[in-house]
Amino acid sequence: MSKLVTPHGAPRLMPLLLEGAALDEERQRANGLTKVQLSSREAGDLIMLGIGGFTPLEGFMTYADWQGVCDDYRLADGTFWPIPITLSTDKTTADGIRIGAEVALVGEDGEAMATMEVREKYTIDKDHECESVFKTKDAEHPGVRMVMAQGEINLAGPVRVLSQGNFPERFKGIYMTPAQTRERFEANGWSTVAGFQTRNPMHRSHEYLVKIAIEVCDGVLIHSLLGNLKPGDIPADVRSAAISALLEHYFVEGTTVQAGYPLDMRYAGPREALLHALFRQNYGCSHLIVGRDHAGVGSYYGPFDAQHIFDEIPEDALQTKPLKIDWTFWCYRCNGMASMKTCPHDGEGERLLLSGTKLRKLLSENGEVPAEFSRPEVIEILRRYYGDLQDHERVEVKLSGHSAK
Amino acid sequence: MSKLVTPHGAPRLMPLLLEGAALDEERQRANGLTKVQLSSREAGDLIMLGIGGFTPLEGFMTYADWQGVCDDYRLADGTFWPIPITLSTDKTTADGIRIGAEVALVGEDGEAMATMEVREKYTIDKDHECESVFKTKDAEHPGVRMVMAQGEINLAGPVRVLSQGNFPERFKGIYMTPAQTRERFEANGWSTVAGFQTRNPMHRSHEYLVKIAIEVCDGVLIHSLLGNLKPGDIPADVRSAAISALLEHYFVEGTTVQAGYPLDMRYAGPREALLHALFRQNYGCSHLIVGRDHAGVGSYYGPFDAQHIFDEIPEDALQTKPLKIDWTFWCYRCNGMASMKTCPHDGEGERLLLSGTKLRKLLSENGEVPAEFSRPEVIEILRRYYGDLQDHERVEVKLSGHSAK
Repeated sequence: MSKLVTPHGAPRLMPLLLEGAALDEERQRANGLTKVQLSSREAGDLIMLGIGGFTPLEGFMTYADWQGVCDDYRLADGTFWPIPITLSTDKTTADGIRIGAEVALVGEDGEAMATMEVREKYTIDKDHECESVFKTKDAEHPGVRMVMAQGEINLAGPVRVLSQGNFPERFKGIYMTPAQTRERFEANGWSTVAGFQTRNPMHRSHEYLVKIAIEVCDGVLIHSLLGNLKPGDIPADVRSAAISALLEHYFVEGTTVQAGYPLDMRYAGPREALLHALFRQNYGCSHLIVGRDHAGVGSYYGPFDAQHIFDEIPEDALQTKPLKIDWTFWCYRCNGMASMKTCPHDGEGERLLLSGTKLRKLLSENGEVPAEFSRPEVIEILRRYYGDLQDHERVEVKLSGHSAK
Repeated sequence: MSKLVTPHGAPRLMPLLLEGAALDEERQRANGLTKVQLSSREAGDLIMLGIGGFTPLEGFMTYADWQGVCDDYRLADGTFWPIPITLSTDKTTADGIRIGAEVALVGEDGEAMATMEVREKYTIDKDHECESVFKTKDAEHPGVRMVMAQGEINLAGPVRVLSQGNFPERFKGIYMTPAQTRERFEANGWSTVAGFQTRNPMHRSHEYLVKIAIEVCDGVLIHSLLGNLKPGDIPADVRSAAISALLEHYFVEGTTVQAGYPLDMRYAGPREALLHALFRQNYGCSHLIVGRDHAGVGSYYGPFDAQHIFDEIPEDALQTKPLKIDWTFWCYRCNGMASMKTCPHDGEGERLLLSGTKLRKLLSENGEVPAEFSRPEVIEILRRYYGDLQDHERVEVKLSGHSAK
């Protein structure tokens, strides 16, 4: 009998998305309300609130929540939470909103995505948030940049969500709500499910991580980030196609579920790994695969900081536990995939390690990618993408660098 | 900080082996006592009692314990226990022992291995034990044969153990007590340790099982049975040498401990898998790798019965949990090790599966064993053993079939 982990801090999922007549009514009402513009990150967070991915949050955080999360990984009510989920606006807009008023939260395309009762307006020490969450104030850090770019005033309050944006349509069959993944897991009879977080196509090292998890759990959720990435990352649709090809040719049917979630990357490394585990609990995962440099960027975090942080939080903070796996690669002497923990061969040329940069160069120049690094079916899809991208770049020189296609 | 599982049914190990002056005294006393002969299986069980491997047992089981274990997997006091640990003797010997008397338990070489206070004499329904424990009364089953061959009367009572037989000397460096493995684990800073039960040399499929466990646990105890096996199995010293060669060339130092324990195989399949988990808990293992046909023989058990039985016992029966892994092999299309759960390629010739019989034939005829099946360093040792065995067999025709060398 399937027995999944319970949602975080609540006996059941708490989706804040309205449906049916209530949704129609609230949409009407939203038309008459003061508009507050959502950034891409905020819109992603809002949708997660809507679908229950951020259970038990009821809206954007108050100052007390923000402070507690930054300093103690806790909401004001004591619930474990590793990263602030906040909404910001500029001073002029904020001044126009009285406490207790309802506002409409509007997406980048102008759509009203939610209504919110504004219960609190507050300013934060952005440096403090960045140092707490990202361990740096460096403006080169993409997560820091997001915080620094946000408005001066935070608005807090409960939300009623009206829309999931274009995710359901754009990523049909991939985008799923926590209720949907739980239903799939239950239909498969799974109890232990490992979440595999990905924002890249899967090469053999990723396949190895996922297969280890399949060996020891009932199944794996291959869970793609569908929100915004940093420039140069491979877009979600290409990534999903590459993953589908891999699953089709190299995995046993019924051992994986491929799905996506609507957040933007924050690149907060260890803290984001905790958030990843937290919302995977809501999606029904008992484990989260945490590999090398999980949710990291540049060299802001030690390669295994995101594993160690799970030892530093209270044991009952999260039901979803890390499946910590070392750096993985093909080893010619082992004649197989391995990790630093299972392969002793660190001599010259014994291990096959390709950097992302080297791979991209090989792909865009039609060079041979070793089958021990990536499956030919995956390479074919990526080669097509990089080919298109190059043609595209030649025409629209530097117009939109990474978001082409 | 290392935090190992606690022993089974007790806050600390309960070794029954005497030491120092107490040992000398008890040895003297044993000389004057009625002798009861131990079978090989009973001697192994006794040593496990001595070193705390069977914590919290204090001696051989009473009738109430025997009945509870057969029918409900429980000792009379309610403690979980899957297989009777009993001592038998013939009727004449039993008639000469009064309840309350002390006897000396004597090994096959005549050494007094323990003293025991006889608290109870009882007869059992051997058919009932065999049907409960082995699911068969078939006299071809080696475990059934042991039960059928044992004396008509069981003797129960607490033991004081005087000797570990020749294990410490014969398997120097391999034979370890639960206190010793726990000390090693703690020195390594391990908390989660998977036990790998083996009575065979390790080929690539076993290496794969152990490496999966290393990826997800702090370390692995490669734990060889050092007692008696059925004819045709590879003796413990050859097996240990083959395992050492594998560890030396293909494992990272500090990720495994190789050790052995003194029991004979019972071949009780599912029930023995539970016993394997139980005493691994005493050795400090949080997990036991349970593969295909664990502790099975012939076709008495379904290939995954020994995995399923862990779902049928109460959740708090054992702290040591199974790490269930499917049938493993090399797959030419995956280009790697895989299991039925991670490899979808079941076409003709896609998987490399060698039977033990085929392997033995290849080895004794100097045929090529594929490197995808077994490491050359392991094959070299086995080839030497089978070569010697053949020469030996040619000289001492059929004198002692399998126990040569």
